[in-house]
Amino acid sequence: MNDVVISGTGLFTPPNVVTNAELVEAYNAYADKFNSENAKAIESGELEAISHSSVEFIEKASGIKQRYAMYKEGILDIDRMLPVVPRRSVDELSISAEMAVAAAKEALTQAQKDPHEIDLVICGSSTTQRHWPAVAVEIQQSLGCTGYSYDMSIACSTATFAISNAMDALLSGSANSVLVVNPEYVTPQVNFRDRDSHFIFGDVATAVVLERQKTAAEVPLFRILDRKLKTVFSNNIRTDFSYLTRAEENLTLERFFEPDQWFVQHGRKVFKELLPLVCNLVTSQLEENKVEISAIRRMWLHQANINMNQFAAQKLLGRPAEDGEAPIILDDYANTASAGAIIAFHKFREDFSPGDRGIICSFGAGYSIGSLLVEKL
Amino acid sequence: MNDVVISGTGLFTPPNVVTNAELVEAYNAYADKFNSENAKAIESGELEAISHSSVEFIEKASGIKQRYAMYKEGILDIDRMLPVVPRRSVDELSISAEMAVAAAKEALTQAQKDPHEIDLVICGSSTTQRHWPAVAVEIQQSLGCTGYSYDMSIACSTATFAISNAMDALLSGSANSVLVVNPEYVTPQVNFRDRDSHFIFGDVATAVVLERQKTAAEVPLFRILDRKLKTVFSNNIRTDFSYLTRAEENLTLERFFEPDQWFVQHGRKVFKELLPLVCNLVTSQLEENKVEISAIRRMWLHQANINMNQFAAQKLLGRPAEDGEAPIILDDYANTASAGAIIAFHKFREDFSPGDRGIICSFGAGYSIGSLLVEKL
Repeated sequence: MNDVVISGTGLFTPPNVVTNAELVEAYNAYADKFNSENAKAIESGELEAISHSSVEFIEKASGIKQRYAMYKEGILDIDRMLPVVPRRSVDELSISAEMAVAAAKEALTQAQKDPHEIDLVICGSSTTQRHWPAVAVEIQQSLGCTGYSYDMSIACSTATFAISNAMDALLSGSANSVLVVNPEYVTPQVNFRDRDSHFIFGDVATAVVLERQKTAAEVPLFRILDRKLKTVFSNNIRTDFSYLTRAEENLTLERFFEPDQWFVQHGRKVFKELLPLVCNLVTSQLEENKVEISAIRRMWLHQANINMNQFAAQKLLGRPAEDGEAPIILDDYANTASAGAIIAFHKFREDFSPGDRGIICSFGAGYSIGSLLVEKL
Repeated sequence: MNDVVISGTGLFTPPNVVTNAELVEAYNAYADKFNSENAKAIESGELEAISHSSVEFIEKASGIKQRYAMYKEGILDIDRMLPVVPRRSVDELSISAEMAVAAAKEALTQAQKDPHEIDLVICGSSTTQRHWPAVAVEIQQSLGCTGYSYDMSIACSTATFAISNAMDALLSGSANSVLVVNPEYVTPQVNFRDRDSHFIFGDVATAVVLERQKTAAEVPLFRILDRKLKTVFSNNIRTDFSYLTRAEENLTLERFFEPDQWFVQHGRKVFKELLPLVCNLVTSQLEENKVEISAIRRMWLHQANINMNQFAAQKLLGRPAEDGEAPIILDDYANTASAGAIIAFHKFREDFSPGDRGIICSFGAGYSIGSLLVEKL
């Protein structure tokens, strides 16, 4: 019988805020410098002048008002436009692990679980900072968890897919208590010189504890009634930085900073192609579970773009979402890859009463869509 | 009820062989050049001269006689010592996907499965060539599989852990037929200038089809009776190349070629620390399943080092392994990260009769250990 519950969630918010105004000031100064240094080529038509960005453009296009950064130094430096990430020794906790451990501690406290009771740690991240050894093993050791662990990645849906994997492991008996962590250290992959994407991402880590209801403490629990996962290939959100870049012929340092080595997104295509898939998936999930959309109190949606969220909510509800039906955290956190829907779930569920139902739904790069139908116990 | 079976396996072997003799010739020429260019510093004691490698040393230390490489050009060039990896457009199949698809086709043919019957593709690789979109989605699309897919990574145990995840998904009902692929494109991560590790790795891809017995065709099946997974953190096998390297201060092109940006291994420590964990895990798995070691016809062990395999087999059997009890493929393929034990299983199981039992066991970086107890149906 499926009695898998979420018994705790955690959130780590990095110490540094980067506002739109700061980003725009740096971007525009970079644009002015570029245009002035290339004035002749621009005048002769060889090069195109770079347009200014603006706070209004960013807010209208995305709904994002600020983002958090693990390391802020360097991001606003127009000769760098990339955080200065300190090199850590192999004996120090790595950055992703540090972020994940902080979020995990809150989730474990909420679930009233000792770390040694956790026998599976899944580190789901859309950007892996190291493969050997997997970051999940470092997190497992740092917390004192037992059993086994692994890293997984499916871009924007990594958190929901990892929760589904946790559920599989609990239902099949592979694990008794699972910790899913999602450290999203994204800012070092952002092309801060690209007007269309320089504002999109922020850093964060989330954590979720999952177990069978029978082992859970007397804490608020959300049962996962159903999950539905889907992937359909698309190059419209892509990044190609990897160890294979280093093995290209005639390599230069500049090569690592070319556009394809950062996140590249064709936003309009994504909007047009992805949203119908999302709406179809959630609609068929509700049908399969014989749940009316009117019985869904809240949708904790993926947090990439406020226009996408409003569109999806309206399409599913048949009317615009009312206050609290599809809460937004991307104004504060920006797009945090797979963590966004989990941040929303972490922040907005205290008002739920037993029997209230909601949907945690991620969608994005891959394309990937993961929808979890949950009920407050 | 657990009726999960392996109904097919596949192997893709890259087109290029690199022999020990070739590697040693290149390495020694590099060493001579280094020593002659730094003769003064070496004479004054500032630098240490680099020793020659030899075919005998490599074979004695590892049992490896050759390895395969997706791209050979550049590996033996003493001014490069790194394969020349061609850059592919976003519309071409990526290298990892190409390798995985080739192995998958054989596994699907063996299992008599149409690709569209597969509703979960897990791409397990110890070196991910791209995160957005995940490589698994590209493989899924290229083959024409349905459902969902994701990438996962736990270094040397990625294949066994991925098989366990597949089993979880089958037992919980998340999927009906799972394709696990393990493209291991490892040579671009090898430090061919390091005498202790220049010979270790080769490229390969493996694939495994898993399903419930009731859906399987009339083909040879191996039921997975039990799996046991464990991870214990260690820095003794590590690599730190990532997108965070690019964000370090005062970055130079040379930084990407420093020792910590390649695979670094402290082989003796690994031997000493890891093997007791492996033997304890397998022994307790057999005890828990009430299976005598004498009832195990074959162990398809991780293929990193012949001395490790002989030690593990002898420890478990209480005597040296006889012919066919612990087959070796690393002489031909070298260490192929997570794929080694699957290559062995792919090549050496035709002689099994119904009721015969064996163990597929991976061990390595993480540390990670994954042991699957299987029985021929």
